[in-house]
Amino acid sequence: MAVYQHTIEVATDGRGTFELSDKIRKAVSQSGIETGVCQVFVHHTSASLLLTENADPDVRRDLEAFMARTVPDGDPLFHHTLEGPDDMSAHIRSVLTQSGLSVPVGDGRCLLGTWQGIYLWEHRTSGHTRRVTVTVTGE
Amino acid sequence: MAVYQHTIEVATDGRGTFELSDKIRKAVSQSGIETGVCQVFVHHTSASLLLTENADPDVRRDLEAFMARTVPDGDPLFHHTLEGPDDMSAHIRSVLTQSGLSVPVGDGRCLLGTWQGIYLWEHRTSGHTRRVTVTVTGE
Amino acid sequence: MAVYQHTIEVATDGRGTFELSDKIRKAVSQSGIETGVCQVFVHHTSASLLLTENADPDVRRDLEAFMARTVPDGDPLFHHTLEGPDDMSAHIRSVLTQSGLSVPVGDGRCLLGTWQGIYLWEHRTSGHTRRVTVTVTGE
Repeated sequence: MAVYQHTIEVATDGRGTFELSDKIRKAVSQSGIETGVCQVFVHHTSASLLLTENADPDVRRDLEAFMARTVPDGDPLFHHTLEGPDDMSAHIRSVLTQSGLSVPVGDGRCLLGTWQGIYLWEHRTSGHTRRVTVTVTGE
Repeated sequence: MAVYQHTIEVATDGRGTFELSDKIRKAVSQSGIETGVCQVFVHHTSASLLLTENADPDVRRDLEAFMARTVPDGDPLFHHTLEGPDDMSAHIRSVLTQSGLSVPVGDGRCLLGTWQGIYLWEHRTSGHTRRVTVTVTGE
Repeated sequence: MAVYQHTIEVATDGRGTFELSDKIRKAVSQSGIETGVCQVFVHHTSASLLLTENADPDVRRDLEAFMARTVPDGDPLFHHTLEGPDDMSAHIRSVLTQSGLSVPVGDGRCLLGTWQGIYLWEHRTSGHTRRVTVTVTGE
């Protein structure tokens, strides 16, 4: 058994999705681990991880539209508005998705399905530098 | 430390839940691992994993009704409608639940609580064959 | 490689959040593991885990208000009402958040971001004793 850990930084330019799949595949490859689990974690509470269809960009457009309707910025329900109308909505979007997700590793590869992509989802309207840690355990 | 990995196929007959708990328990048993973590992963973006109450089927009926209201099929908000009115809603239901989930292993068993069951949740209205990988790591 | 497992009990006094971050950090410290993954799991289906901002309590107040509006107690949609109006809503809140979550371990520490806290989220209106298992794997 072995463990490999690598932290990456992702510069976002505001709300939207940023694909991480290749960076994660590379970390798995560099780990030298044949069978195990790859865990991905974002160290923030207003950005999250998204695993969804990677072929048609409209999927992510529709997800964004769904979130905009379900968790509206500037909702009068919110008290936590210190950083603006997208502050609390960003936290809720993060809670409804994932701060961490795991993907199996087999044959030395990250076993994402054919149509699965992993994205960093920036929920703030302005850009941020987001830290993501990839940890691979196995043998 | 050891790692055990097993992929199963689940044939669904359309939208609904299909219990995986026994298959997962069996994989943990076959792994021979006494203490560790069992990770379950679905290799698709229009089906997901659900961990919920396993006693009263009304719980899953109510979850289905809640999703039907919150993420309606054929919502005019959606642009990604190539495969029909349940295409984009299936992706959103998947994002709001889990593509992967982990359960601790102790005393050689999957430590699900008494009332916890793990289900594959098919979100498409037609049946599909879904691949699920179970990876157990520990010692 | 090593594995360390510890189960804790959390007595809740009804709906609300109960911080687990220090208990999880302590488990990681006691594991002696330098690099790996810490997995946290709640053995119930009407309480869940929440990873969110730990500075301003209004964040958790607003999350509670958002859930109360999105998944209302006593919704006439629900059939599963045996234990009262907060029974089914508790299951749905659990499904929309996390039964299990994993955090990377590095330099012998749980690598939560500066503003990240992990909470047990009790979704029932009355108090319960909730079991949570922490499993650390790595080396």
